[in-house]
Amino acid sequence: MIKKIEHIGIAVKDINSSISLFEKLLGNKPYKTEKVDTEGVNTTFFRLSDQKIELLSSITKDSAIEKFLESKKEGIHHIAFLVDSLEFEINRLESLGFQFVSKTPKEGADNKRIIFLHPKSTNGVLVELCEEI
Amino acid sequence: MIKKIEHIGIAVKDINSSISLFEKLLGNKPYKTEKVDTEGVNTTFFRLSDQKIELLSSITKDSAIEKFLESKKEGIHHIAFLVDSLEFEINRLESLGFQFVSKTPKEGADNKRIIFLHPKSTNGVLVELCEEI
Repeated sequence: MIKKIEHIGIAVKDINSSISLFEKLLGNKPYKTEKVDTEGVNTTFFRLSDQKIELLSSITKDSAIEKFLESKKEGIHHIAFLVDSLEFEINRLESLGFQFVSKTPKEGADNKRIIFLHPKSTNGVLVELCEEI
Repeated sequence: MIKKIEHIGIAVKDINSSISLFEKLLGNKPYKTEKVDTEGVNTTFFRLSDQKIELLSSITKDSAIEKFLESKKEGIHHIAFLVDSLEFEINRLESLGFQFVSKTPKEGADNKRIIFLHPKSTNGVLVELCEEI
């Protein structure tokens, strides 16, 4: 079951100036900054009620965020839905014809197992499914 | 005060096929479809916990959604934050240097007064502030 929006991921070029900008916008401070080497990104999380805003900046030249910034500039990168069971949702959605970016889940930021649906099967929206570890 | 993510707006070309797609993805049905003539859009809302997913399709050739679809294809269009008082947030954010797309709020879908921040002042993210009517 897809339970809720867990976070919105926003691709940014300069993490420090963007942290400052979102502090002003949201009126609070980030609760966590975490480097995810497997994705080549730096992540910073703001809480907003029961959701999070995740700022993503690239730390390698071949990261997905670097490619996104090159092709689309800064902006909303993905929407993440919290699920009870990744395996259940992967099976459910595959049987409905949805496609995934990778074959199996991997470890993401903020203590999650994650997998991305391919935007070509979701109206151009990069959808992350995540499960608490 | 910015209270929470109220909804995520997604620009789509064919509202009927996208409703069908998001019904499968989210596992539920939309609770509302509403035409907003002032914006030249058809909107369809899905509930997801305490948030909403809004699908937006264009019904006029000069709507903002039509222009978005032409330049960026389908995908996430905006993120909307619920606020206590639009006037308070407009004053607070203007004093911090944020810019707005329009000078004053207008009536939006789903019983809201709304205003958009200009993406050039928010890292390329189109941010809607909304207040319950």
